[in-house]
Formats: sequence, C-alpha cells, structure tokens
Amino acid sequence: MRLAQALFAPRAVALVGASGDPGKNTARPQRYLRQHGYAGRIVPVNATRDEVLGERAYRRLADAPGEIDHAFIMVEDVEAALEDCARKGVAVASIYSNGFADAGAAGAERQARLVERSRALGVRLLGPNSMGVIDLPGRLALTVNAVLEAEALPAGSTSLISQSGTMLGTLLSRGAARGLGYAKLVSVGNEADLGVGELVELLVADADTKVIALFLETVRDAERLAGAARKAHAARKPIVAYKLGRSALGVELARSHTGALAGTDVALDAFFRDCGIVRVDMLESLIEIAPLVSNREPPGLKRQARVAVVTTTGGGAAAVVDRLGLHGIELAGMHDLTMAGSAAGYRATLEKLLASADCDAVLAAVGSSAQFHPEFAVEPIVSARRTAKPLVAFLTPHAERSLALLAERGVPAFRTPEACADSLAAFFAWRAPRPRPEIGDRHQFHSDPFAMLASLGIPIAEQAIVQAPDFAHALRYPVALKRLGVEHKTEQRGVALNIRDGAELAQHARRMGDAQLLVQRMEHGLAEAIVGYRDDPVVGPLVLVGAGGTLAEIYQDVAVALAPLSEPEALAMIERVKGLAVVRGYRNLPRGDTAALARAVAAMSRLALIPGRPVREAEANPVIVKREGVVAVDALVALKE
Amino acid sequence: MRLAQALFAPRAVALVGASGDPGKNTARPQRYLRQHGYAGRIVPVNATRDEVLGERAYRRLADAPGEIDHAFIMVEDVEAALEDCARKGVAVASIYSNGFADAGAAGAERQARLVERSRALGVRLLGPNSMGVIDLPGRLALTVNAVLEAEALPAGSTSLISQSGTMLGTLLSRGAARGLGYAKLVSVGNEADLGVGELVELLVADADTKVIALFLETVRDAERLAGAARKAHAARKPIVAYKLGRSALGVELARSHTGALAGTDVALDAFFRDCGIVRVDMLESLIEIAPLVSNREPPGLKRQARVAVVTTTGGGAAAVVDRLGLHGIELAGMHDLTMAGSAAGYRATLEKLLASADCDAVLAAVGSSAQFHPEFAVEPIVSARRTAKPLVAFLTPHAERSLALLAERGVPAFRTPEACADSLAAFFAWRAPRPRPEIGDRHQFHSDPFAMLASLGIPIAEQAIVQAPDFAHALRYPVALKRLGVEHKTEQRGVALNIRDGAELAQHARRMGDAQLLVQRMEHGLAEAIVGYRDDPVVGPLVLVGAGGTLAEIYQDVAVALAPLSEPEALAMIERVKGLAVVRGYRNLPRGDTAALARAVAAMSRLALIPGRPVREAEANPVIVKREGVVAVDALVALKE
Repeated sequence: MRLAQALFAPRAVALVGASGDPGKNTARPQRYLRQHGYAGRIVPVNATRDEVLGERAYRRLADAPGEIDHAFIMVEDVEAALEDCARKGVAVASIYSNGFADAGAAGAERQARLVERSRALGVRLLGPNSMGVIDLPGRLALTVNAVLEAEALPAGSTSLISQSGTMLGTLLSRGAARGLGYAKLVSVGNEADLGVGELVELLVADADTKVIALFLETVRDAERLAGAARKAHAARKPIVAYKLGRSALGVELARSHTGALAGTDVALDAFFRDCGIVRVDMLESLIEIAPLVSNREPPGLKRQARVAVVTTTGGGAAAVVDRLGLHGIELAGMHDLTMAGSAAGYRATLEKLLASADCDAVLAAVGSSAQFHPEFAVEPIVSARRTAKPLVAFLTPHAERSLALLAERGVPAFRTPEACADSLAAFFAWRAPRPRPEIGDRHQFHSDPFAMLASLGIPIAEQAIVQAPDFAHALRYPVALKRLGVEHKTEQRGVALNIRDGAELAQHARRMGDAQLLVQRMEHGLAEAIVGYRDDPVVGPLVLVGAGGTLAEIYQDVAVALAPLSEPEALAMIERVKGLAVVRGYRNLPRGDTAALARAVAAMSRLALIPGRPVREAEANPVIVKREGVVAVDALVALKE
Repeated sequence: MRLAQALFAPRAVALVGASGDPGKNTARPQRYLRQHGYAGRIVPVNATRDEVLGERAYRRLADAPGEIDHAFIMVEDVEAALEDCARKGVAVASIYSNGFADAGAAGAERQARLVERSRALGVRLLGPNSMGVIDLPGRLALTVNAVLEAEALPAGSTSLISQSGTMLGTLLSRGAARGLGYAKLVSVGNEADLGVGELVELLVADADTKVIALFLETVRDAERLAGAARKAHAARKPIVAYKLGRSALGVELARSHTGALAGTDVALDAFFRDCGIVRVDMLESLIEIAPLVSNREPPGLKRQARVAVVTTTGGGAAAVVDRLGLHGIELAGMHDLTMAGSAAGYRATLEKLLASADCDAVLAAVGSSAQFHPEFAVEPIVSARRTAKPLVAFLTPHAERSLALLAERGVPAFRTPEACADSLAAFFAWRAPRPRPEIGDRHQFHSDPFAMLASLGIPIAEQAIVQAPDFAHALRYPVALKRLGVEHKTEQRGVALNIRDGAELAQHARRMGDAQLLVQRMEHGLAEAIVGYRDDPVVGPLVLVGAGGTLAEIYQDVAVALAPLSEPEALAMIERVKGLAVVRGYRNLPRGDTAALARAVAAMSRLALIPGRPVREAEANPVIVKREGVVAVDALVALKE
C-alpha cells in the first residue's frame, strides 16, 4: 500500500524547516531519526542554510536529489511547502505547523483551503498540528516529541493513534517503564485529511500491530471509524479507546483545544460500545490493557462476570476486588497462598482456576516478593498453562522488574488496583460490533409529531383536536386536555388530567384560553418512560430510553445506542436503565410490558431510515408502560435547520 | 508517655519465636532491626536454641537479662508468652500470631480471654495478627513485612496506621519510588487492645508525625477515633483515610478477612466527613496527598472549588481537568506555556495565580521535560513563592526523579491524572470536624411511631384510628385509609387515597377487612422525602434524608450524617440530595419548604438523645414537602433487640 509505506516506512524523508539550533523543537526530528537508526535517506530543508546539524541541507525541497516519500513540514508557509511537495512527488506530508482549525474561524478556513489544494495535488496530509509519526520496529522517529530523547524504546505490538501529540510521549515512556512497547504511534493533529478512521484501517492491515490504542478528545469521522472498527474486529485486532470529555468541563476543554465539535460523552460511549471498541476510564489502563485484549475475542457474557483471585497479600487483593464490585463484577473465590509455599502449588492453583468453569478471569495479586525476588514471584504466573481465559496480575509494591517480566511473557500486569479493575471491567463490557439491523421499511416523514410516531409503529393515545366554543369530540371519558405546542406542559399549567365529563372539559378549556386544544383518552400504567431519538452531529443517529418523570431526568438515567436497532437490542438497552426496574419485577410490583417498550424503542430508532434524515430530535415522553402494551401520550419532533 | 515509648522507641525488644532459619518470616524482625540500625538491645527468644542468626538467644523470656519494653510474639502459645511478658515487666506485646478474631467464633473467644488477661496483667497488646511496628526516623524495624529487605527507606513526616499488614510494604515501597517517606507505620491486626483511635492519639502527640494516613477495612472503635480526630484537628495534623468496602463485595470481603463487623460504606463515609477525616478513593492518593494536606487547614469552601492550570502538555492537563470536572471542580483558566520559554516566566505565571483570588489551587502539568531534564522541569515549580493556596504537579511521562525532586521540596506531585484529581477533590471536600450540636432536650421514648415522631417535633398528618363496623372519625374529608402495621402498604393494597366521604370510606374499609384501620387527612405537596434514623453498629447514630418514592429508592439518593445534628447542618444535607432538586427551584417548579424539612431531619436526629438509645431504626416515609411546611404521613420505629 503506497500510503502506509510513505507514512510509516518512507525510503526518504524531507524535514522542511529543519533547524540548525539543537535547542529548537524543529531540530528534533533529524536528531531522533539518526539516534533511533532510521535506515532511509534524510533530507533537511532550510531556507538559509546548506548544512543542518552536520548534514547537507537544501534551500528548497525542489533542490533535493532523489525521490522523497514523506515530508515533515515545520515552516509557517505550509501552503508553499505543500506545492513543493507536490512538485517533488511526495506522497504524504505530515504538518507540525499550527494555526489552522486549532486557531479559530480564520484558521479553519485556511485549513479547508489547504485540504482542497492537497486533494487537487494528490498529496495526503497528516495534521496540521501533528507531532508526527513513530514506527519503533521500523526505526522511524519522524517526530518532535521529546520522548525520543530516550536512548532506546521497547518495540511492541500495540499501535497508538492520538489526538494529543504529547500523549505519544506519555504512553511511550510509561509503557517503557513496565516493559510494554509500541509498534506505530501517530499524532493526528487536526485530522484535516488523514483521520483516526483511515489510520485504523492502515493499522488493521499492518503486520506489526495486534492492538490499536486510541487517545481521543472527540471523533471527527464517526462513519469511517465505525467501518474501520468492524474491519479490526474481523481481523481480530482489538481497539481500545481513552476519551477525554467525560465531564462537561472536559467537553468544553476538548472543544477549545481542538477546534472540533466535541461529542457528548453519552453519545460517544454508545458509539464505542456499538462499534466494539473497548473503552477504558483511566489513562494507564490504555497502556496496561493491551496484553489483556490482545488475541482475544469480546467475551460477550450474558451475566455478571466472575473473577477468581489468588493472593499472597490480603489488603492488595481486596483493593482490586472492592473496585471490581463497584463495576458489578463478582468474586469467584479468594485463594490465600503464601509465597513461602511451593511455586508448584501456586501454579497448580492458577491452572485449576484457569481450567474451571466457575470463573471468567483469574487475578494473581502479588506482594513484596514482586519487589525483591521478581523472577521467583512471577514464575508460577508466567509458567501457568494458558487457556482462553485471562490471567492477570496486580503487583502491590513498586515492582518494575516484575512488571517487565510479566509483560515479556504477555501476562497483563497492573500497577494500581484501580487500573486493574477498570481494565477487567472494560474487558468484560467489550462486545462485538453490533451488526447493522436488517430493517426493510423506509419510513416516510410526517410533520405532525403524533402522526410521525404512529407511522413508525409507536402506539399513541387516542386523541382529537377540539375547537372552541363547544370543544366537541368522540372520545370516551375520562380524558386529558392539553395545550398544543407547549413544552413542559405540567409546569406551564398546560394540562388537565382525569376529566370526567364535558362540563369539566369546557371549564378547563376556557381556563386554558386557546381556540384549539388536544383531548386524549386518559391513560394509566405502571410507570412512565421516555423514548427519544437524536441525530448527533458527531456520531449520527442515536436512540434513547429512560425512566420518565422529573426525578429520572435529574438522575440522567438513560441508555443510549446507535440507531437503528432491533427489538432484542432495545430490550438490552431497557435492562441498563436503573429506574425501569419498577417494571422489571421490583419487590412485589407488577411487571410492565418491556417487550412492547422495546418495540417502541426500535420503532423510534427507525427515524434514522427516513431518506435524507430530516429529523434532528424526537421524543415520546411520557410513554405509559402498562401490564400489556405501552402508549405515548406526548410527542415532539424537531427538524434539522 | 510510657506506651508510646515502649511501642515506637523501646530500649530493648524481645523476639519471641525468633527463627534461626533465615528463610522464615519469623527470622525477619531480627534481621531487619539490625539492617536498619536499631540502637537498642535485641533479645531473641527461641525454645530450642541458644543462638539465633549469630546472636545469643534465650530459651524463655524469663531467662533474658535486663529490662524489656516491647516483645514481638511469633509463637503459637501466645497465652504463655503473654504471662512471660508480664513477669518480665514488658509494657507492650505486638502479636504476629493469628488464630484469634480472624479465625471464627472460637478464635474470637480466645481473643476475648487474651485481652481480659492482658488487662489483668497490665500488658498492652498490638494485634494479634499484626505485622508489627516500623519507626523510620527512630530506626525501629520491628516487623515481618518484607519491604524492609530494602537497603534503606526514606524517612518522612507521614505516619500510617493500617488494618492490612501487607499494606505497610505497599505504601512504603511506592512512597520510596517517588521520594515520599514515612515516620511511623503500625499494622494493627485484630485491634484486640490497641485500636486505630488510640494509635491516632499517640501520633497526634508524636513530634515526627505531621500527617496521619489510615488504611482501613472497617472501624472498630468509632467513638475513640472520632475523639482522636478532633485532637488531630486541634493539633493541625490532618488524617487521610483509604477504606476498602465501597462495594458490597468489598464489605463482604472485609468481614471475612478481619472477622470484624464491616460498616456500610455510606455510614463510614458520613463518619469520616463529620470527623474531619479526608477520604481518598484511590490507593496511591493515600501516599501522594500527604504534602497537599500537610500543614494545611480544611479549605471549607462554600462554593465549587476552582483550579487554575499551567501546562506544557495539552492532553495531560486535560486528563486531569476532565476528571476534576467529574468531581464538580471548575477550571479557573488554562495557561499553555512552552518549556522552551523562560523558566522565570513560568514561575511568574505560577506566582501570579498563587496570589490571585480567582482560583483555589494551582495545577502545573509537566510534559516530557520532567523525564529528561528533571531539575530544569521542576525548577519554576519548586522555586515559586508559596502561599496558603496549594500548588500541585502532575507529570505526564514516567519521571521518578522529578517526582522525588518535588517531594523533597514539599510540592504535592501526582503520577496519574486520576490520583491527582481524586486528591484535589478529597482536599476540597475536607471539612473541620463537626462540632457536637448543643441540644438541650432529652427526648422520651414512645412506642407508637407517630407519637414518637410527634414528640421529637416532626409534623405528622392529622389522623385517627377507626373501628368496624362504622369506622367513625372526626377528620375532614378527603382522607386516606391505611392498614395498621403493614410495611410497603402501596404494594400490599393496604392504602386507599383521596376518599371523599363516609360511604367510600366504609367500602374501602370492608375490602381491607381489618377491625381497626388508620384514617388520615389527605395531604398533597410538591414532593415526597424520606427522613430516617439508624443506630449503626459501627459508627453509632446516623440520620438520613432522601427523595421519596420507589425511583429515589432505586437510585439510593440519600445524604447521611452522624446524629444528632443542627438545622443548618440538616439543610446542608438536603442540598446533597440530587432528587430534592425538585423542591429547590428546578425549572419552573415551585419551591418547597426545605427549612421545614431540615427541622424534621434535625428533629429525627434527636432520637440519638433518648437515654439508653433504645431505637435501632426509625423512618418517616413519605414526608410530604409543601410550599409551607412538611408533614409525615407514614412512620416506622424499630427497637434494638
């Protein structure tokens, strides 16, 4: 593949703007390429010098001899450098320079022009605002990231794509300290051209890469990334993501930092889950989880996961188990052994558990011996006969040598109880990418919200529009009376319930004062739910289900998934809503018709199938959940502008 | 103080059961005492040898010459060893041996007998099941914990009391790896005699200790610990606690592991907060937070905390800020600097922020320079003029030397974004110990729940007991009818609401079928709340307030505090209940009388003042919150057995 080769294994690289001052960032790529043994040709380009750091330099790219696959652009006039690249037949230009989408509206326009021109010229772009590319097995250190100051860095089979350039250094240095190496690392910058999705595709095809790690602030190419994730799954290359912006503050920051639209966390969480991307919550999990997912399939458990623990240190193991409990993971037994006991006995215990049907993973918690007798401490763990079931280690003391020994043998090893539990929880939550449901119908758009929901197949309350002065209708009493086109009706005195006859109706209608009002058959049920749809600007159509009412709104107790989806998938969503426990058989309360609710959720999700996707947002709220059936008593549809 | 001296600075120690086999745990204390330079006399006691590890040993403690302050008991026959200690005038016996409360009911009885005998003999006990005592400045390594294999360990001003013996090694080794040392470390084992509370008292009086760290699985002496925490606060020695058992699984484990009653997490959380104990969520926070709280007072902010960030690494800083956002901490500005810029400028930025009124803490996030140029990277941070406001550092790469340099200069430095945010959040949540409210009245006990609540001052619904066959009463309609003595009335068809007249009442009463029923004036309000009381077996009387109804119950949305408390404190609790937002002015909803609810909560808390504390549990549920006033419509009181 031409692109992958130019990007990761160029035969020659040009450093456009290479500085002769070793103290400058722009002097680094040349130094790092040499230091880490790049085998290709290095071509420094400097407008004022014929020699840079002791090597022959060229005033212009055009002056340089031979073919150049990849240019690293570190000058202000990126546009001119791009033209030079095109003339020279450069396939990929990585742009360190900033001042594009990272710098307000004018910068964004500049970026759009740059991309347009690069397409016309046939030059692919990485960045702008990219710290470059590293390929450790290939000895390419085409980057300004100072982590390359290290004399050597361990190569491994995890590749990283990062929206933060400095994170390349963070993950490389922390990985190196525990013996976990990397294959390729890419700083994507503004993703003007090459985005995370396309880079994942390249890594899926890369022989050195077994696990793909993502450090994200947002997602800019959800559709392509979703497709790439499916390819990665097919190729058995797990993708793990750490994403900033779980808090509103983080979202705000990501927006100001990247100039990109930052997706809401709940939308991106649904996106990751449905794409089969493992999401970790802690930064070091992104490093440490790699051996846990490598060569493994999503476990796809239909029940709570169970972890068996073998320990020589009560407190340390308990710190992990306590945290696993917070994730809803169960303990399948705690085996207290002493290190002074036989290593063979320890190993036999591990092997018995690894072969047992009573647990889904085995955790070995190792105490002080990991610090002072690393070989001895890890021996039973690394020598235990492996099965498909994960065997992971948590080391209670500071024990880098033991971490490295475990890493060397492919045993997932964790430095903190929190990252250990986070990684196991992320592993067990990992699902295969959701198949696109086969849904034949294309739905028609209706401008009336109730008509729209009804046409999707969502049951709506029997209703009629009534007119002053007589407000006549043919519905049976009791009924509800509602003002039309008023949101938050309850708070706006826009609704009257349990109206028993025409006289009462007329009285309420006169109070409301509108010429037209909505009358509905009064509906009662076991609980209220909310069913919603949103065409998210970042990840696309989403469907939502939650408990209804003000309290549920305050608790933000909803499940979200990519739309469209099938009824069984909708039922799985309903299971995730805590507040809907009231209709799932809570205490002695009667059960509600969750199957009918799932049908309504799946129906709502089919808004994603209307040609042109005109709907921005839709909501059936409340949906009354009854013993048999559900019925929507209020509806809202908002169109895209 | 005799006890403190014998425990931490004994002039002579006896090692009862010292092994001559260097591979055995029981050989360690002698080796460690020598290795770490203990200056006192060491007396090995071994039933079968006159020489142990090259030193003169004695068959029995009685045979040893001279006075002995502290004995470390490592033999099975602890009882005989205790008698020997008493005869020899030993002040403290630390017991490594197990088989006591850690080993079922028979063990617990054995422990009770041991304690009784030790009191009679005047020997204080540490343990059983204790790994011993370490005093680093005092060079006492009276422990079996293998962390003492280290050639040297840094002394510091944090002291640790741990219910897990192995955690001594975990915290010491991890602290040492980042330049954070300890003063005293105590493994309390089963706390048969010397408990965490009394040890905190000793550390409050200890000149080497500035911060007291607790690793807890439960609390066995809540009252003494609460008193000790007040003394620690008065002495300006912050206490920081990490407690296992946040999950139900963790609670279960703590119970089985320690043989102790494990308190519910919510009860212990209330206990820590009200005692002014800083609680951290992550294990490494317990190490890293020490310089943050050392010599500081609880910040006691009345609003959200604001942190200003100075960074050379966007992604790394964002990882902390995102996490701070999850804790409700705000960003007071993000200052992007380059390390290549002047150190003086960096320092000036820090000093400006430290002097500014616009933030409550300053976070410096440092990138790769921390790894390769530690002195250079930390210089502006360590040299910035300090104010009372915390200045903390997060280092994005693996950078132990920088961590140590910062530790040396007392700057709190964090290895992970999560521990950094956790520690800042714990710091800002830190409150001074709550003063015991001055509440004059002692309340009388009433066996009828409604009478009990009414006598405390909680408004209850107007009500009457009615009898078959006529069910006569003097209340105004509409009323509610309820079965007496039935819990979860709604689910049991034990309640009829909105009864409009006597005929309707009689109809419902006949359906219920009881000879006696309760009639109440029908009450309506803006929301329902639950107000509860529990005399917790671990921490004592607690008061609870939460949103009412099934949903709130599912979300476990309650605030808990130690009882009794004052009305302003009760109001602060109400603020912490998310679901009560509906009466605090949510959207356009009318405000409820939270002051009246606070009065009810404070009233409920006064159950703690009834002589003899006969009430185990009490509940007013629901309490109807109105625009003016509140009223309890159901009540429950359960007595201790």
